[in-house]
Amino acid sequence: MHTEKPLILITNDDGITAPGIRALIEAVSDLGDVVIVAPDSPQSGMGHAITISKPLRLDKTDIYKNLKAYQCSGTPADCVKLAVDKVLHRKPDLLISGINHGSNSSINILYSGTMSAAMEGAIEGIPSVGFSLCNFAYDADFSAAKKIVKIICKNTLKNGLPVGTLLNVNIPNVSELKGIKVCRQANAKWQEEFDERKDPNGRNYYWLTGKFVNNDKGDDTDEWALANNFVSVVPVHFDLTAHHAIAFVNEWDLGV
Amino acid sequence: MHTEKPLILITNDDGITAPGIRALIEAVSDLGDVVIVAPDSPQSGMGHAITISKPLRLDKTDIYKNLKAYQCSGTPADCVKLAVDKVLHRKPDLLISGINHGSNSSINILYSGTMSAAMEGAIEGIPSVGFSLCNFAYDADFSAAKKIVKIICKNTLKNGLPVGTLLNVNIPNVSELKGIKVCRQANAKWQEEFDERKDPNGRNYYWLTGKFVNNDKGDDTDEWALANNFVSVVPVHFDLTAHHAIAFVNEWDLGV
Repeated sequence: MHTEKPLILITNDDGITAPGIRALIEAVSDLGDVVIVAPDSPQSGMGHAITISKPLRLDKTDIYKNLKAYQCSGTPADCVKLAVDKVLHRKPDLLISGINHGSNSSINILYSGTMSAAMEGAIEGIPSVGFSLCNFAYDADFSAAKKIVKIICKNTLKNGLPVGTLLNVNIPNVSELKGIKVCRQANAKWQEEFDERKDPNGRNYYWLTGKFVNNDKGDDTDEWALANNFVSVVPVHFDLTAHHAIAFVNEWDLGV
Repeated sequence: MHTEKPLILITNDDGITAPGIRALIEAVSDLGDVVIVAPDSPQSGMGHAITISKPLRLDKTDIYKNLKAYQCSGTPADCVKLAVDKVLHRKPDLLISGINHGSNSSINILYSGTMSAAMEGAIEGIPSVGFSLCNFAYDADFSAAKKIVKIICKNTLKNGLPVGTLLNVNIPNVSELKGIKVCRQANAKWQEEFDERKDPNGRNYYWLTGKFVNNDKGDDTDEWALANNFVSVVPVHFDLTAHHAIAFVNEWDLGV
């Protein structure tokens, strides 16, 4: 009989000292044995970057008192890889990443270090969930988010997840949540506009800015859920094959 | 009537001076007007990283003689965003990324800067293709790859691609190609093993290494095609929703 407490690996992309990861730790600390392996500095927008051309540091830290915690010089995906290979004595029962300061809904999942850590966990066969609160502020209120984290984590520990899938959970920044909705990823994008400036030497430089555009009118999307004060839960996988396009390309003249 | 020549945007992740991008430029230079916007330094393993916490540089360069070329301090995804907003006078008819030095088949697509540039193009509504040669060497022979690039680009310019899709093209490193196969992404992964070393001060550091493991026995995958000397073409999309898992999660107790 398996009598060990569940082993829960925690990471994020805002860095090991961010309020969001502290909220995540508090939310699940009574659900199992917690181990933290998180970046030693903010890694937002890192997507699924991994570190291949330089070595990584991995150092024990006591900032979370009695909890086993390590800070890593790499990306969120690096943290998960290192945790699995060098820190944990067995495969964890749950990997959670976040709570991200800011939304990772719809297309934002692609750019998200939070979600790439969860995806790396799913690749390793670990039931994995990324959490984000739709509030970028450092002093955001995570109290409602913590309740959601607990509900989702209890369910994931109890039921597992289908092979090769993970969850992208986004929490609207409101005090009155209407509920939790299982959704699909909305077809939305960023309309980029770079802010062009001149440095003191007269050379141009550019700041990324942009406007979020949701072209998806469906009421089954994560954007719809968030706009209507629901928590969005999108089951995600890492098979990027566009199966519906295979027949299209098979019509092409591809003789070599 | 549209009488302009096709406008082709070219980028990569190995940097603007890499042999692979030079091969790509040569392969398509008679298919349309070529504009190059590529990283000023190697960006391998950057996944879909974007630069949000510092500004970007974008500078004209004449290394490709009469061709319009810019080097950018950002990631491959940044290059595409900047090209669309600041360099091109209209939406290009084709975006190509590569030729990457090394495979981006199966799970490698997630870590690939080459493919993230192509994905960014697809998000912008541009027919986009990423090319990779299964040879990491700087002096790899790109001659067979150039013929494949031309075949795929001609077809893409002629037929377009279904909305929201792009192509991941991998070319085996053999002189006798058997043909081109349209495939699905294989279910494969890296078995990580970090090489643990001590620096001169006695502190540990870690190099990422690993073994590629293909658990997918299907003969319709990109890994199968490459192992059998076929070029693999995987249609890819950026809707990561695991639609088959929505019903599973809907069974959970998600009352708040």
